[in-house]
Amino acid sequence: MRSLVSSARRKGSAVVVGLDPDPPYLPPQVLKNASTEAEAVRQFCLGILEAVEPEAAAVKLQSAYFERLGPEGTAVYEGLISTAHDLGLPTIADVKRGDIGPVAAAYAEAHLRVYGATSVTVNPYMGVDAVAPFLDEARRLGDRGVFVLVATSNPSAPDLQDSTAPPLYEAAARLVSSLGEVEASGYADAGAVVGATRPEVGRRVRELLPNALFLAPGYGAQKGDASGVGALLDGDGAGVLVNSSRGILRAFGATGAGDYQSAARDAARRMREDLKGAGLRW
Amino acid sequence: MRSLVSSARRKGSAVVVGLDPDPPYLPPQVLKNASTEAEAVRQFCLGILEAVEPEAAAVKLQSAYFERLGPEGTAVYEGLISTAHDLGLPTIADVKRGDIGPVAAAYAEAHLRVYGATSVTVNPYMGVDAVAPFLDEARRLGDRGVFVLVATSNPSAPDLQDSTAPPLYEAAARLVSSLGEVEASGYADAGAVVGATRPEVGRRVRELLPNALFLAPGYGAQKGDASGVGALLDGDGAGVLVNSSRGILRAFGATGAGDYQSAARDAARRMREDLKGAGLRW
Repeated sequence: MRSLVSSARRKGSAVVVGLDPDPPYLPPQVLKNASTEAEAVRQFCLGILEAVEPEAAAVKLQSAYFERLGPEGTAVYEGLISTAHDLGLPTIADVKRGDIGPVAAAYAEAHLRVYGATSVTVNPYMGVDAVAPFLDEARRLGDRGVFVLVATSNPSAPDLQDSTAPPLYEAAARLVSSLGEVEASGYADAGAVVGATRPEVGRRVRELLPNALFLAPGYGAQKGDASGVGALLDGDGAGVLVNSSRGILRAFGATGAGDYQSAARDAARRMREDLKGAGLRW
Repeated sequence: MRSLVSSARRKGSAVVVGLDPDPPYLPPQVLKNASTEAEAVRQFCLGILEAVEPEAAAVKLQSAYFERLGPEGTAVYEGLISTAHDLGLPTIADVKRGDIGPVAAAYAEAHLRVYGATSVTVNPYMGVDAVAPFLDEARRLGDRGVFVLVATSNPSAPDLQDSTAPPLYEAAARLVSSLGEVEASGYADAGAVVGATRPEVGRRVRELLPNALFLAPGYGAQKGDASGVGALLDGDGAGVLVNSSRGILRAFGATGAGDYQSAARDAARRMREDLKGAGLRW
């Protein structure tokens, strides 16, 4: 997680820009000028990377929007990870994979080694078998990390995560705690996905994972706001990366501006300042 | 699920052949003759499809082993789904995806519409948001289905699935029950992944899901056997598809025979008969 943590510290930013390129929401001029949907996605995401680089600690690629583009989408996904790193932006491959040991190892190889992402999101439903191979691969490669789904930010998160005693998110947090190793950065290589939408849940997960880096989705579009992030902070007032996808990618529509790059940069800058106002200090 | 159910009934077979093409375990002659790893995987899987067609109800493609091959792997995955259908074999895209609503919709579009799989496996950790978009897409396309992870067969399955009260697999089963609609085949379009490794868990899940089609992994390599399948049967002594991957793909090694196709076909035939002996009657 070193490069993620050092990027956040260097830039004084907790902002993660989520690349969720859904073609109906791409700028019309980008769609018009590209020969294929995959090419439009590639150009749009390249424009976003360049625009947000000064404000963002990292970028998160949402695998689904590349998978739906077929083999060309896979190539775009791989190319964007590489370009992000060239720009000094660490990457989070948001794949939420989780499977039996040998399959988890193949997923880890795919996203951390072949595509080269800095970190990856993992689903813990199947237990330690599904998570440990990602950490093994991360440790072999060095300076990589894993974010395990613990308490998500979507409306139906409580369906399974809060329907039992103890709540599932506590069991998931204990699994993360048992697997992570604290690095020189002060954070463990096993982080957690914890929504900024439910402060009481966030505080409990932070108690269980004092040294974990949290990835908080749900900022903006999913009704999370800066105040929800407060519950997730560690003892240093840091330890959290906050993702916004639609709020930045679709900012050009909200402002009415034709230039999606400056709209995205402005939205990322406002988000960074907003998070600082809420006490997040990297 | 109609084509999956009718294939099982027509062939009198519960056998699902899992395509988990891990290069170190491919037949040496296939690896030697292919120009790339992806091409070796393609040729091997085509050979398996042709060989097992008479014995198998369906094939299951393990996404991880194609993802790790980059864009060429995505093309191989897409091509194999198409070839399987040409041979009359319905497909299960074993992707275990699960994400917020719009992302789940993009995954559903990718695997059911773009790649064209008959069915897909889904992870319910994030609740109904993560599952319903797959069923929506399945219903738009018609004759498709979803298998939701409920009780898996891997050694660490109990880490989260049995660590709470009520157990997580019960909450997951209730979610599946609430979403599925029973089709003309007599089965719901929302099925469940239920391991053949823990009979007491299997019986409980069957009580909660009397009309669900179960996909049972863990036959052979994961220490499931035909006796474990008995606990999963529905009132008609059917309702279960049983997956074997390594037991069929690597059969050529176990027999010492050079012909991986006849070894795979023989292994699939033995498995089909073994399951019939355990009372599974499609």
